[in-house]
Formats: sequence, structure tokens, C-alpha cells
Amino acid sequence: MAYGYNGKILRVDLSRKTISVDEPEDNFYRRYLGGRGFISYYLLRELKAGVDPLSPENKLIFASGVVTGAPAGGCGRNSVGGKSPLTGAYGDAEVGGYWGAELKCAGYDAIIIDGKAESPVYLWIKDGEAEIRDASHLWGKATAETQEIIRSDVGEQLARTAIIGQAGENLVRYACILNDVSHAAGRTGMGAVMGSKNLKAIAVRGHNRLTLANPGAVAALAKWLRDVVGIVMGGFSAQGTSVGLKALNREGGLPTRNLQQSVFEDADKITGRAMKESILVGRGSCYACPVRCKRVVSVSEPYQVDSVYGGPEYETLASFGSNCGISDLAAIAKANELCNAHGLDTISAGATVAFAMECFERGILSERDTGGLKLNFGNASAMVQVVDMIARRKGIGDILAEGVARAASRIGKGADEFALHIKGQEIPMHEPRYKQGLGIGYAISPKGADHTMSVHDSMYASEGPLLEETKALGILEPLALDDLSPSKVRMVVYHSCWQHLLDCLVMCNFMPFTYHQVEELVCGVTGWNSTVYELMKVGERCLAMTRAFNIREGLGRKDDLLPQRFFTPLPSGPLQGVGIDKDKFEQAKETFYSMLGWDKIDGIPGLGKLQELGIEWVFDYSGGEIGD
Amino acid sequence: MAYGYNGKILRVDLSRKTISVDEPEDNFYRRYLGGRGFISYYLLRELKAGVDPLSPENKLIFASGVVTGAPAGGCGRNSVGGKSPLTGAYGDAEVGGYWGAELKCAGYDAIIIDGKAESPVYLWIKDGEAEIRDASHLWGKATAETQEIIRSDVGEQLARTAIIGQAGENLVRYACILNDVSHAAGRTGMGAVMGSKNLKAIAVRGHNRLTLANPGAVAALAKWLRDVVGIVMGGFSAQGTSVGLKALNREGGLPTRNLQQSVFEDADKITGRAMKESILVGRGSCYACPVRCKRVVSVSEPYQVDSVYGGPEYETLASFGSNCGISDLAAIAKANELCNAHGLDTISAGATVAFAMECFERGILSERDTGGLKLNFGNASAMVQVVDMIARRKGIGDILAEGVARAASRIGKGADEFALHIKGQEIPMHEPRYKQGLGIGYAISPKGADHTMSVHDSMYASEGPLLEETKALGILEPLALDDLSPSKVRMVVYHSCWQHLLDCLVMCNFMPFTYHQVEELVCGVTGWNSTVYELMKVGERCLAMTRAFNIREGLGRKDDLLPQRFFTPLPSGPLQGVGIDKDKFEQAKETFYSMLGWDKIDGIPGLGKLQELGIEWVFDYSGGEIGD
Repeated sequence: MAYGYNGKILRVDLSRKTISVDEPEDNFYRRYLGGRGFISYYLLRELKAGVDPLSPENKLIFASGVVTGAPAGGCGRNSVGGKSPLTGAYGDAEVGGYWGAELKCAGYDAIIIDGKAESPVYLWIKDGEAEIRDASHLWGKATAETQEIIRSDVGEQLARTAIIGQAGENLVRYACILNDVSHAAGRTGMGAVMGSKNLKAIAVRGHNRLTLANPGAVAALAKWLRDVVGIVMGGFSAQGTSVGLKALNREGGLPTRNLQQSVFEDADKITGRAMKESILVGRGSCYACPVRCKRVVSVSEPYQVDSVYGGPEYETLASFGSNCGISDLAAIAKANELCNAHGLDTISAGATVAFAMECFERGILSERDTGGLKLNFGNASAMVQVVDMIARRKGIGDILAEGVARAASRIGKGADEFALHIKGQEIPMHEPRYKQGLGIGYAISPKGADHTMSVHDSMYASEGPLLEETKALGILEPLALDDLSPSKVRMVVYHSCWQHLLDCLVMCNFMPFTYHQVEELVCGVTGWNSTVYELMKVGERCLAMTRAFNIREGLGRKDDLLPQRFFTPLPSGPLQGVGIDKDKFEQAKETFYSMLGWDKIDGIPGLGKLQELGIEWVFDYSGGEIGD
Repeated sequence: MAYGYNGKILRVDLSRKTISVDEPEDNFYRRYLGGRGFISYYLLRELKAGVDPLSPENKLIFASGVVTGAPAGGCGRNSVGGKSPLTGAYGDAEVGGYWGAELKCAGYDAIIIDGKAESPVYLWIKDGEAEIRDASHLWGKATAETQEIIRSDVGEQLARTAIIGQAGENLVRYACILNDVSHAAGRTGMGAVMGSKNLKAIAVRGHNRLTLANPGAVAALAKWLRDVVGIVMGGFSAQGTSVGLKALNREGGLPTRNLQQSVFEDADKITGRAMKESILVGRGSCYACPVRCKRVVSVSEPYQVDSVYGGPEYETLASFGSNCGISDLAAIAKANELCNAHGLDTISAGATVAFAMECFERGILSERDTGGLKLNFGNASAMVQVVDMIARRKGIGDILAEGVARAASRIGKGADEFALHIKGQEIPMHEPRYKQGLGIGYAISPKGADHTMSVHDSMYASEGPLLEETKALGILEPLALDDLSPSKVRMVVYHSCWQHLLDCLVMCNFMPFTYHQVEELVCGVTGWNSTVYELMKVGERCLAMTRAFNIREGLGRKDDLLPQRFFTPLPSGPLQGVGIDKDKFEQAKETFYSMLGWDKIDGIPGLGKLQELGIEWVFDYSGGEIGD
């Protein structure tokens, strides 16, 4: 069995028009793995504290993980990270498709973009060769058109692309980056960072397969996945990520009308099943994945929706659907298409529209503000128009392009009460009054409101196969959804470490791999003898690094907040009367900090913890904010 | 595959003459596993703070682990624990042989002994049935004779025994308990606790094999071990635990003359090879183990040494040999036989003789004190006589039976400078100026001077197969023996957790199993899906529990000391001039505490850490000594 990991990291300075290559040693890969591990490493070491996220001083880092490119489901993804223009904190987004695996096949594990091009450019990487090319003719174009032109320009119809649309060009603070025009690196505004650098796209083509230390072990995992997909992921394959929407609504956990409610009376109209029975025309996939959870939809009227842009996922269905009081699948599909064409994060975009709708209904915004649009909940047509206006920064869209926190500040009149965000980022489509462990994850996630750190808690909390699985980490008993006890916090802490690990590997969250199988995958690819202990420590290390980055930027416990709405009882539905207990929540935060070896009160990792994680160097890059 | 672990714990109250059985749930076994995990659990919950270790209020707990009795090497052992009469702290000792596996086959995972019998008794357990029997006729007898009589009494020649000798009866503070008369549960004076309860022996016979969830997996591990024994453990099989004695001496790490020196000029005469070429008559083994590292020796003159008592291990060879300046193998073998016959810990016994020799040479003890013995270093005959006197508490032996700390206090005249102990327990035969990571383990171990928590550091610290193995925990770089940096401390912390895990499983430290293989063994026996993460957390949990016990007993950082000698430069040999840097050592201790999430200054685990380890209940049993 071959041993160790050999990789390359591409550095591109757009200001200086230089390209170079780093070749870190095996231990670097083993310690940080990739993705969020790489991004937080480079941001801590190479970014000055306090830089404007939209200035040339920010970095934009595209990173795969050591398993990316392995011929197994969940291994085609990449991260994109930098300081977030939405939160001013650590920012990244993970994205599926084929681009990540293609980058690996082209010889690179990551790309670090510095500076800003004088005029629009794109990057073309083929089999180890990288080139900065003019993109003047692409600026302002939609992602699909851009992709078509680039493929033609470089003469590679199989080139994989990461592209921004007008939203990124216009520095919409929640602009995203599209892989292959239908997979979004959605959150934290990395599309705006890319736009600020005048970088329209990165096209990649590679022919070198990842060298596997133990090809048989990797093949066995891939086969296992193919064999069980129909059994354990049948609904997911058939209905996509929204397979659980109906049950969520039934239990009172579906964000509705800017999270004023948690039950949507027309939920049946926006389910995966409803989509399948109406606008679905196909299923998309990611590299090497047998699940095929991605949706492909087509609509001809009243909106024309191009199937090239895929179709809405759960987050999108809820953010433009129930959360805007909308049950019109065609309109939701159109909003999704606009987001993918122009490069907007569907979660933040939908949440921002919902915010505007609540402001409109409460008289804080009027038709004078909206340019005549009646922005009531349920107005599908107005929603679609506002999404387009945001991407183009037209009319009210220019304010809403700033995200709900800044928009509320501009609007005034108490709008901030309805601006649901954490650290400036809009709330995803998971109700923390329903999954209270998720609420802790929301508050503490380095990225601001982000569900990926703890969304699975609801599943692990109850009896069933996932409880059996999580016993492998030593969590032996079921924990109720509304439990905020130390035992529950422990589960959130452990899962947060594991989630950070997955985001270092840049593996898909939806793969049904056990902890042991992820370990086998890492070992099978690299030849390392890693244990789940080592992997959990990579996750914990990464969590501490992103925390240290945020602390250096002036964030801290004061920013680990939930919007007041979640402490307010739900008005109706199965969870009528349920709000998060604020005292228990604050106590749970302290418990979370202290379980990670962070200061219980300040939430700052101390020197001893950094040393234990093998990242003593972070202390020197902490701007004096970390105590000894 | 069967799931979960069903076990029974036998409770025997010698005062009330009652016997009962507990049947804990599967999660109890999964959380604590056995051995030190069980002992610290019951001591914390059921012992009052401050009890006299030699009073009926102390408990004596015999515990196996969940893998004990599995047909694989290293799985025949048991622990014996209670509050130590030597240290006043948490005490336990692990022991090989067959008794642990036999107990499991008799239907019990552990035995908790309470109270004190009115007159000498022994316990007889056969296939689930337990009986308290009179032992008046056994009191005062040597272990081999006792075993023979018991086997005859119960009519079971295959009964396995755990027996104390005169040392235990006489409450020698470092009296041990002998399994099958040749395997010692040596440290922390558990033989004295047994003696204080008037319990002479526990004899066991069982016919029920351990139910294995996955017999094939366990068999595969056993086969692997048989296959590699000759390759990776050939020297160990041939020469026993003293295989490394010569190299240790060459490098300047062999405790010599009460650790005044670290090179013994006659080391060649006490090596495993020297023993093999002279007094060795056979090799002993433990349950299901192919290694056969145990020695069997026979001597006819000038001492008669009975081979029934086995032969000296490395610790014994060094403690009665180099550390007493003695190179007479026959005398060392006699001292070993006396220790096994009378139930004395060979480490503490040898170290106590060495202490007395240094006092004698320095004029602190005279022939008047020793009853005419010329107790110079190198006087083999005097050494043998003193060992016998200690067991019988005759003459100077009565003072020395108290251990070096109390003896020095009785002797006065500055003797305490030469009383090398930690928390009252004598130093094992590993030189902390040579292995400085071991020094941290010595100081912090809940048992006082104990090498098992960190003895392997020297092997892991250098390049080679064990460094490759320890990478599985995320320790990626070699670390020098004299390194006390945070990276080194991290290694000691991680290995301490793993060592505590092994002591919960009660597995032999010498098995060449990888972390993954231990995980496979646990899963193969129980059907759990445990990961190395879960197992490391069991170890960390146990470390915190033993710490909490000690804190409740009034111990703390002030007791995490090394004798001044180790901060003093070695006078000669390869490490001439080397002493431990006291400032670095104190810093390393703080780093150790803080890496474990204990208070950096006090070394007390906080509530958050207890909660993270799933032992919040410890807080309620901490006597108010643990802060929130």
C-alpha cells in the first residue's frame, strides 16, 4: 500500500499576474486535510486582521480535500472561502458537482487567489497548467452563457466551471459561485469576493486520476454505497433533499413567513413529491455519486425556467416557498433559476425577500419603497421580481442586496426586529425552536447562521439507526429535540467536530457512511492509519482555527446570538407556545465553550487547547486576543 | 452479530456475611468498560471521603474488563483496586495470569468486597455460586501452600487463586496479591487492604466461556497475534520483559543504587539473556497468550528458589539488582520468590531496600538499626534478609514495611532526601531524567509513582514503527526523549488516555495490537460499533474520575511532584550532567492539566469537562472540591 499524500496548491496573484505552486509535505495534509482546514489555515496566517472583505487584500480560496476525486459518492466537492462580506467573519461555502474532482484531476488540491485583476479575467487550468485570461466579454453574462463561451474559448466542452453571475459582479453580499451552473457554493458571499477581484470564473480540465493507496478499499466503499442507496436513500434519490419537508411541516418545524410560524398550510404543494409530479424533468448528480439527489426542472409558463440550471433543493423550496408564504412551484423554480443564473445564495435571497415581505406587511416598507410591488407574503410574482432586482441591485434590490442586517439598518423604523440573522447571515430553513441543539450550532457556527454544523442533531437525537451510529462516539442515550442539557450540548459539540471534519474532507453531508467508513475512505486514499480519534481532532482543530480567526476580527460571545424571535413562543401548530428558554440557551453556550476547552465565559480557546490540537502557531496569529 | 454486553457484578460484605449480585445495563459497561473504570466509579460513589484505607470502610474491588476472557492474547487479566494504604489516594494494580479470565468464565465481571471478616476467610466462586469460607488454617501461610490447601479444600485442582501472604496479613503498605502465586497485582498496597479485611484469598472456577458478538473477528485477531509473535516479539518471548535492560543501561537509563546513577557496571549479569543462560528453567504465560514472556527460574544454592513462584520480571531485576547495586541473579531470584510467597510488591520492596542501603551508606542507618546487617549497596545476602524481615515486620523490616516515605519520617536525620517516592509510592525502574515524558506521567498519575501511564513514551518518541502507529492519534512528528515541549506533553496526554483505556479493558500493555485492533477486539466481543474516539474518551473519563477521587481525598497539584533527585544532574554515564529542568517541568504539568480541560493552575477537572465526558454525576461526589 502506497503511503502518504502528495499534492499541490496553486497560488494566483491577480494584482501581480503571477502564478506559483506550493507543495506542502504529507503532514500538512494530514493535519488539515483540505477544505475548511486549508482555508482557515491560510486566512489565519496570511490575512491581516481587519481587511475589507471586498478589497484586494482579502483572499479567495478554492479547496478540495484529500479524498476529493476518489471514485466514491460524496467525493466530488470543493469549498470556497475567504473573509465574508456578509458577516465580516470567517466565510466559506461547500459545493457539489464535478468541479472539485476535476481540479484534483488537473493536479491541484486548492487555489489561493490574491489581489484583484485590473479588468475582468477568468482562470483556465488544464492538467497542471494555469493561465489568467481576459473575461471582458463575459462580464454581465449569466452563468450558463458564460460557461458556454468559456468552453468554446478554451476548446474543451468538458471543462468544469466555477462562475459568478451579476450578483457577484455587483457585490451582492450574499452572492454565490456556481459549479457547472447548477451547484452553488452558496453561503457567506464568496461570489461577491470573487466579483471584487474581477474574477468571473475558474474553468478546469484534468486527466490525472487521484492515486489511491488502497484502491480495493475505496472500491469496496463505493460498491457498498451503490448497494445500499436504494434501501437507505430511496426517498432521497426520488424526492431530493426535500424528501423530509412534509414530515417537518407536520411536526411543526417548517420555517414559514419569515419564521413567524412553523407550519405552512400549503406545504403539500412544495414537497419533493409535488415537484416530481409536476415540473421535474430529470435528476442531476455529483461526481461518482449513485444517489442522484439533485433536481432538474423545467417550466414554460407563466415563467420560463431553463433546465440547465437544475432545480430547487429543500433550502430553496422553503426559503422562497413556505418562508415567503408561497406555494407556487413554478415561481419557486424561477427564483431558483434566477439565483443560479445570476449567482445568488437561495437561502439568503429567500430569507431576505421574506424579511422584506414582513416589513411590507407591517408597514415598514411601502409600495413607494418597492417600486409599486405589493410585497405581501404569498405574492409569487413580486418575489420573482425582487430576486431579479437584488441580483441587478435595482430599486429596493439595492438595499436588499446588502442582506437583512444592513438592509434593516438602512430601512430603520424597527425593521431590525424582523431581520433574522446571526453575525449578519440570514437564517437557513431549519427552525431552532423545533431543533434546539441546532440553535446552539446556529449561534456558535463561525459562519454565522449556518445549519450544516448541527442540522443532523434532530436525527441523532431520537431513537433509531442514527442513534446507534452516534454511539460510536460515546453518545449512548437518546436526547429530546428540545433538550438543552449538558448531554445534548455534548452531542452538538461532537457532531460539530465531525461536521468540521467533513468540511475539511469536503465530503457531502448526505452520504450514509458510518464514522468507520469515513475513516476507511481516508486511509484507503492516503495510506495513513488514521482513526476516528485523529479525524475528530482534525474537526476540533478546524473549529478552533475558525474561532480564532473570528476572535481576531473582533467577534466573540457577544456575536453568538439568536434573533429574539426564537425566544418567542410559536403562535400555532404542534409547537404552539414553544420558544427557546434564554437562560438555558446561554447556559448551553457556556457548556459548549467549556466542553471544547474554550474559556467558559468568553468562548476563547486558550493556549493549552491550541497546543493540544497541535496548532500552537495560532497563538502568534491571534492578534493578542487569545490568552495564555 | 449479537449486540451488547450482559454481565454481573458480585458484592460481598464480609462484615455482614452477605453476598448479592448487580446486573448493570449495557450502557454502564460501554461507558466504563471495567478495571480502573469500574473501580474509580464505585470508589467515587460508594466510599466516604477520608476513610482509613486499612479500615473496614475501604472497599476492595476485583475487576475484569469487557474483553477479559476473550480467546486472544492480553485478555486474561484483572485489576484490584481500593483506596491505597501507601498513598491515601486512588489505588489499583493490574495483574496477569488466568484468574481474570476464570472469574469471567465463572459469571462475574467484578467483585466488590466491603467490610471486614471477624476472622480469616476466603471466597470460593464456582460457576456463579459464591461462598465465604473459613481461612483460619491458611493465615500465615505462603501463597503456594495456601493455593494447594484451597484447591484441595474445594476439590478443584484447576481453581484459580488470588492470594495474599504474610505481608498482606501484616499490613505491609506495599503488600500485593498473587494470582496463581506467580503473577502479582503489585502496586499501591492492595494486599494490605485485603489483609485488613481478613480475606486471605479468592479462588475461582468457571466453565462458561465469554459470549462473543463476532467470534470470527476475535479469532482473526488472535491468529494475527500468533502469526506475528515470532517476528515482532521474538526477543520479548525469549528474554521476557527484561529484553531491553541492556540497551537501557547503554543509553544511561537503568536505575542504579537508589537512582543515584543510571548506569550499572554489572548490568550484563542481570539481563534476560544472562537469566536465560543460567537460572531459567521455563517460560510461563497468561490466558490465551502466545507471547509467553513470563519467566520460571530455579536455584538450588546458595538460595533455594522454588520454580512455582515463577521468576523475576524487568522491574524486579532492576529494583533488587541494579538499584541495590546487586548483580547476583540467584539473590534477585530469591528476593522475587520471597515477594511472591509472602505477597510483597517487588518494585516497592526493592526500592525500599535501596533506600535503606543509601541511608546505611550515608550513616543515617547503622548496624544497630539493621540488627547487625551491613546494608551496603551490593550486599545480596543482606538484601534477601531484609525482604524477609519486611514481610514479617521483623526488626528494621517493621519500619521499612511502611514504605520509604513513612520510614524516612520515622528514621529522621534527613532520610527523606533519599526516600524516592511520589504521593508515597516508590519509584519504578524507569529513570525520568532519561525519559522526561515519563516524569510528567509519574508526577500526575493518580496512583503516585507509576510507570504504566507513560512508560511507552520513549518508544513512541523516536522514529520507527511505534511513531507510525501513534500517528493514528494525530501525533505526526518524532519527539525527543528530553523534550518537555507542549507537543511532547500532548503525546503524554494522549498516551495517558489510551493507557487508562487499556486499564479499563484490563488489557496487557505489551500486546502489539494497533489502536484499530483494540477497537476491533472491543467491537468483536461486544457487538458495539465503538471507535478509537469512543475508547480514548473512556480513558480520558477514567483519568478524570481517578483525579476527582484524589481531589476529594485532599490531593492536588501540590502532590504532583517528583523527588528532588530527578532535578539533580546525573553524575556519570551517557546522561552525565542531565537533570530535569524544574521550570520546564512545572510548565509541562500546567500544559498537561490544561490539555485535559482541567484547571491549568490547580489541575482540577471542571464541571464542563465532567459533562463532556458524560460523568456530570462526579460533581455531586466531589465533596465540593470541583468548581463549576
